[in-house]
Amino acid sequence: MTTVGIVGAGIAGLHLGLALRAADVPVTLYADRPFDELAAGPLLNTVAHHHPLLERERALGVHHWPAAEFGYRAHHHWIGGLRFTGRFTHPSCAVDHRLYLPRLAEDLAARGGHVEVREVGPRDLGALARRHDLLVVASGRGALSGLFPRRPEHSPHDAPRRLVCAGLYTGIAPAEPAAVTIGVAPGQGELLEIPLVSRHGRVTALLFENVPGGDLAVLNELSPAEDPALFRKTVVEKLHEHHPATAERVLGDFALTDPRDLLQGAVTPAVREDFLPLGDDRFALALGDAHVVVDPVMGQGANIAAYSAAVVAAEIAAETVYDEVFCRRVARAREEVLLGASAWTNLVLDPPPWLGELWRGLADDPRRADEFTDNFDHPDRQWRALATRRRVRAFLDGS
Amino acid sequence: MTTVGIVGAGIAGLHLGLALRAADVPVTLYADRPFDELAAGPLLNTVAHHHPLLERERALGVHHWPAAEFGYRAHHHWIGGLRFTGRFTHPSCAVDHRLYLPRLAEDLAARGGHVEVREVGPRDLGALARRHDLLVVASGRGALSGLFPRRPEHSPHDAPRRLVCAGLYTGIAPAEPAAVTIGVAPGQGELLEIPLVSRHGRVTALLFENVPGGDLAVLNELSPAEDPALFRKTVVEKLHEHHPATAERVLGDFALTDPRDLLQGAVTPAVREDFLPLGDDRFALALGDAHVVVDPVMGQGANIAAYSAAVVAAEIAAETVYDEVFCRRVARAREEVLLGASAWTNLVLDPPPWLGELWRGLADDPRRADEFTDNFDHPDRQWRALATRRRVRAFLDGS
Repeated sequence: MTTVGIVGAGIAGLHLGLALRAADVPVTLYADRPFDELAAGPLLNTVAHHHPLLERERALGVHHWPAAEFGYRAHHHWIGGLRFTGRFTHPSCAVDHRLYLPRLAEDLAARGGHVEVREVGPRDLGALARRHDLLVVASGRGALSGLFPRRPEHSPHDAPRRLVCAGLYTGIAPAEPAAVTIGVAPGQGELLEIPLVSRHGRVTALLFENVPGGDLAVLNELSPAEDPALFRKTVVEKLHEHHPATAERVLGDFALTDPRDLLQGAVTPAVREDFLPLGDDRFALALGDAHVVVDPVMGQGANIAAYSAAVVAAEIAAETVYDEVFCRRVARAREEVLLGASAWTNLVLDPPPWLGELWRGLADDPRRADEFTDNFDHPDRQWRALATRRRVRAFLDGS
Repeated sequence: MTTVGIVGAGIAGLHLGLALRAADVPVTLYADRPFDELAAGPLLNTVAHHHPLLERERALGVHHWPAAEFGYRAHHHWIGGLRFTGRFTHPSCAVDHRLYLPRLAEDLAARGGHVEVREVGPRDLGALARRHDLLVVASGRGALSGLFPRRPEHSPHDAPRRLVCAGLYTGIAPAEPAAVTIGVAPGQGELLEIPLVSRHGRVTALLFENVPGGDLAVLNELSPAEDPALFRKTVVEKLHEHHPATAERVLGDFALTDPRDLLQGAVTPAVREDFLPLGDDRFALALGDAHVVVDPVMGQGANIAAYSAAVVAAEIAAETVYDEVFCRRVARAREEVLLGASAWTNLVLDPPPWLGELWRGLADDPRRADEFTDNFDHPDRQWRALATRRRVRAFLDGS
């Protein structure tokens, strides 16, 4: 009987575990800390789940926060003064992963998945590989994060392009209709304002993506625990200065919900090799952030991680030999979507001048704006639409 | 309006042209010689069309030789004395390409495809590329054959592994039931005996795959035009010596149908790059033998060429920008089947010792033998079954 070991307890590892249990494959998931500790810890991210991911949650029976109730159906764009709205065909929904992940871990355990809390380092992989038919490394943090070699042709950056300051806030009037607001302050960075379900109920996540050395980088140097008033004042000031589409809805009682509800950090985007030989014809397969790390600016990370998990689960269920042929097959099956998300995100981080044609075109044509927005569900399609100026023009022409 | 130029008038080019016309895409096919000249020329190959290709012919309305009438449903194997039979789920069918290609060229012209007879060399590509939105090079012979760089990681050979001596014969009692007989004379090469429809009606194709320097290599040095009796005598002798499963059905009137119905040659297997930039964001896409050349021993060439044409046609119809992103998408879409056929064929040409386990296993288990035979329709599945000793064992275990 095939058994699969999964290192990492984020959305990638949990979705893989749940999908494998649905196919009756024995699974052990290695988590680096207890889930209650994770639930009580600092904000993990502010990612929205898009329709394909929500559909997978429904299929797995783990869609606990109905998107029809908690979700949203549009993106409002404010790009250097240009405004337009794009509508999704199906709603998206954002839930604090400190609620989401522990709940899915419960589901996994209830379905016979074995959850083991232990740190796994590079030197443990050989022994784990011998315990399982296949080892999947889905841990983007800690000792295993650099395990798989970077693919330089798909990894143009060796340092973060943005300083991420993500927090949960109250005191922002919701956009009408409910939507994510995407603000672009040219040269300074982006702001994603996201309606999000947290332990406080519905709150507003502000995901500042600040250009290093720019005017908003100060947000990554202030501590709301040390000086909450200064932090609040600076956030409000910077919103008014650079992100007016959100600032115009900030109310008097605007506040960070809790110092714990803040994440200040940065991500170096990378596409890594799909697998690593561990000797004796056994392999570790890369999944999630261990495989492809994207900057959060386009909100693709969790979505492509869960997508990749679904591909891997289907390939595992269709095979019995987990060798290099298998790993290459997995790589080929998931590549277009993952590379699409990565390349699209990198494009937005370093926008070429001609991207302005796209924004003007979308502002002029609601049908194209809707298609652009729907493509957040399909990063491969988005990349085909945006990869080059020629493609952008063809996309805007509707051809 | 998109127009596509296709250089090469073999099965790859014609299937692409027909599929594009079915999608209403304007097409010009450049043939290096008139089709009546090709029809009157020497034997081109002896390849059987397997079910997926026959299904595409049906869909395109060009299935002129019904497989139910002219086809066969089994492979008889004789491997160093070991005998077994595998059955196809659906019949395969072999038609002389000197009948097949001119007929499909008529179909293409009748459907508005433009057929132009002219030699195209490397220096003509730039001008042709400016005439079309996309240029597809599907010519495995002549000046363009080496156009696309070899991919060394998938091209282990730089010289032919077999000397091919293919001919059409009468005077062989057909196998019962109708079948291709595959003989393996270890160390000397292979023989494929194929029921084939030719201008003479039903004949038997003998495709000798002779190891260079081996005992059958002499077949590639004799000329039936110069000394028909010696050629006939030598073929009969070598059949009895090395390919008894066919020899036992050779009758007194055994003869080559015509000196023209013989092909003596050799193929260097190669997997080449999928595309070539021609400047100005225009590209030549490789198809058929210009892209992947396999030794004929497993009869995959025409089948993967037509498969690849179908993939390319679908991708062309789904796109409007034929740039590098498009070319890479095509490459990804067809890669598994093409590499599978190539790797499987190369495995058979240089059989590792453990391949004996496969043959013994197939001889012992008719269900596996049927699956192995059916996988001639699906080279990607065949490669997944055979890639390594471990995979062969799993395949034989039925897991």
